[in-house]
Amino acid sequence: MSENTRLRPGDTIGILGGGQLGRMLAQSAASLGLKAHVFCPDPNSPAFDVCAAFTVAPYEDLDALDRFAESVSVVTYEFENVPGATAAHLDAKLPVRPGVRALEVSQDRLFEKRFLSGAGVAIADFAEIDSQAGLDAALASFGGQGVLKTRRFGYDGKGQIMIRKPEDAANAFQAIGAVPAVLEALVPFDCEVSVIVGRDLDGSSASYDIARNHHENHILKTSTVPADVSDATTRSASAMAEKIVAGLDYVGVMGVEMFLLRDGDEEKLLVNEIAPRVHNSGHWTQDACLTSQFDQHIRAVAGWPLGATERHSDAVMENLIGADVDGWQSVLKEPQARLHLYGKAETREGRKMGHVNRISTRTA
Amino acid sequence: MSENTRLRPGDTIGILGGGQLGRMLAQSAASLGLKAHVFCPDPNSPAFDVCAAFTVAPYEDLDALDRFAESVSVVTYEFENVPGATAAHLDAKLPVRPGVRALEVSQDRLFEKRFLSGAGVAIADFAEIDSQAGLDAALASFGGQGVLKTRRFGYDGKGQIMIRKPEDAANAFQAIGAVPAVLEALVPFDCEVSVIVGRDLDGSSASYDIARNHHENHILKTSTVPADVSDATTRSASAMAEKIVAGLDYVGVMGVEMFLLRDGDEEKLLVNEIAPRVHNSGHWTQDACLTSQFDQHIRAVAGWPLGATERHSDAVMENLIGADVDGWQSVLKEPQARLHLYGKAETREGRKMGHVNRISTRTA
Repeated sequence: MSENTRLRPGDTIGILGGGQLGRMLAQSAASLGLKAHVFCPDPNSPAFDVCAAFTVAPYEDLDALDRFAESVSVVTYEFENVPGATAAHLDAKLPVRPGVRALEVSQDRLFEKRFLSGAGVAIADFAEIDSQAGLDAALASFGGQGVLKTRRFGYDGKGQIMIRKPEDAANAFQAIGAVPAVLEALVPFDCEVSVIVGRDLDGSSASYDIARNHHENHILKTSTVPADVSDATTRSASAMAEKIVAGLDYVGVMGVEMFLLRDGDEEKLLVNEIAPRVHNSGHWTQDACLTSQFDQHIRAVAGWPLGATERHSDAVMENLIGADVDGWQSVLKEPQARLHLYGKAETREGRKMGHVNRISTRTA
Repeated sequence: MSENTRLRPGDTIGILGGGQLGRMLAQSAASLGLKAHVFCPDPNSPAFDVCAAFTVAPYEDLDALDRFAESVSVVTYEFENVPGATAAHLDAKLPVRPGVRALEVSQDRLFEKRFLSGAGVAIADFAEIDSQAGLDAALASFGGQGVLKTRRFGYDGKGQIMIRKPEDAANAFQAIGAVPAVLEALVPFDCEVSVIVGRDLDGSSASYDIARNHHENHILKTSTVPADVSDATTRSASAMAEKIVAGLDYVGVMGVEMFLLRDGDEEKLLVNEIAPRVHNSGHWTQDACLTSQFDQHIRAVAGWPLGATERHSDAVMENLIGADVDGWQSVLKEPQARLHLYGKAETREGRKMGHVNRISTRTA
């Protein structure tokens, strides 16, 4: 439902997903006087420790979804892979924000690329791939190189294969599971950057400063602001991000990942991927801005106006992945660091356990 | 117990009291990867919406306290009037921080003044009052003026009478309930200021910038930072605050209220009152410092080192009292304001419903 519901303090926001993003959304909701009801199949969800109510049930449990829907005024989600049937079931009953359309587009790389192209946003060349023969043909037109990605359910480098030489291509379609896929042209990018953009129910939008992202093992490791890009690039990034959320009639916060290409002094951006939710590369906003991305998302989803996105400090966000979290004591000793931990009981390799925002106030 | 317990992420902090201070403490605990278990007799406690566990029971319910104590690693409190027997019962089982001694001192204005004097901190003249005759005698030596305050259970102007002329004094002892009291000399103060100070288990302490406080109807209305005082006054305020927490072997955050007296260019501070907990006049730290007073208290209580207390922005905190909260929508439209609401279902006159931090980043 796209109706014009606006919440009042004391109302309840439903959140699908109880991981760290749902947890930080629930914390922001509480700070703004709203209650959070978190729905998640995992009985050990980190978000359950900070919400007024929670439901443990599979996303396919329609009875549980019905009870959930009756207890909340609006529904949002912390992850883009909300099953389509779940979103549709809820959408028939109450507003689902950022929206069902944003889910459909971001769940399928082909739909996403088509939408982005149609929205007038620059992206890398791509081809739809449904067979090894199709892959071979597309590679021929891409100079023999590209990244083959499944259309659905890829994240943190999963479901993708880098193809640089003919041996990489052989059987690549089989290797990703012989499922519908896309081939993306390789772009000689200098770095990955991202923009967190918010859009409210009235159609106003606002972007945070662009962040420069560094990945390790396909997982985001650091986001740095300022990103050391030109003012023109900053404006261009915001303009693209705001075009994207307008095109989806989006309500909430979105993470837009982009490749930055450099040719001499020239900078160029290509949108790589969108995430219809708060985004790991926006965690720096918690400690460097008056309105964090989590506050911003809650404000938008509640039908409230956006908050200011200005940055009062420079920031480097570092993810604490797996055993990184064992360094929590030394982080606490750093005067410019703020430690954020997700309350996950078990440390596993590759698991996001927390993050650190290292802040340089400009007044120091 | 004063043992050297230090928590690890995943451990649980027990919080006595479920009001807005307990709520914001629980939120900070979660951000730092700790769980909060809130104990409060009020089934509608605001803190219950943001904690991993809660107990609804009277503070005198020893069985409930025992179960609570077994579920947590350390206990703290959001209010100074924790019954002595409750604190003693818990203290026999596990660390109670900031400490039983801090409660004893701050629950009784006479003990508090004696302690402050003994700690070498400047305070206004005072006299112990146990009868009308005693009051009359003390007034004679104070020039006929003073503030008569009950020794125990006074807050927000309750349990006190201002005596400026003889008629005010007649029956004043009866009027405050004929209970043990103190008479404080009136001081011609320019304004009230306060300092939030933290002290950790190793005895290190750190103060935030001094705030200038404005009261309406005996309730704090605004706290402004910077407070427009001299550097010498700032240093003196910190020195006094740090002397106080050292004298109590304190672990946690304390609010120290002071009167600022001016004589030409000369500034002088007298300590008015201490609060052995996070303090309303420190709410500005949430949005103007990397470490909020709530984070700081949790860090100390957990046995962790203190965080940095530097301020990156100027701030004015305004309490939303009673119907003030109806203005939430206009606050949301202010670009430099951050709204904090406490999730209280019922708006009552004089009730603290939330606060706003208005921030001026120095980089604007």
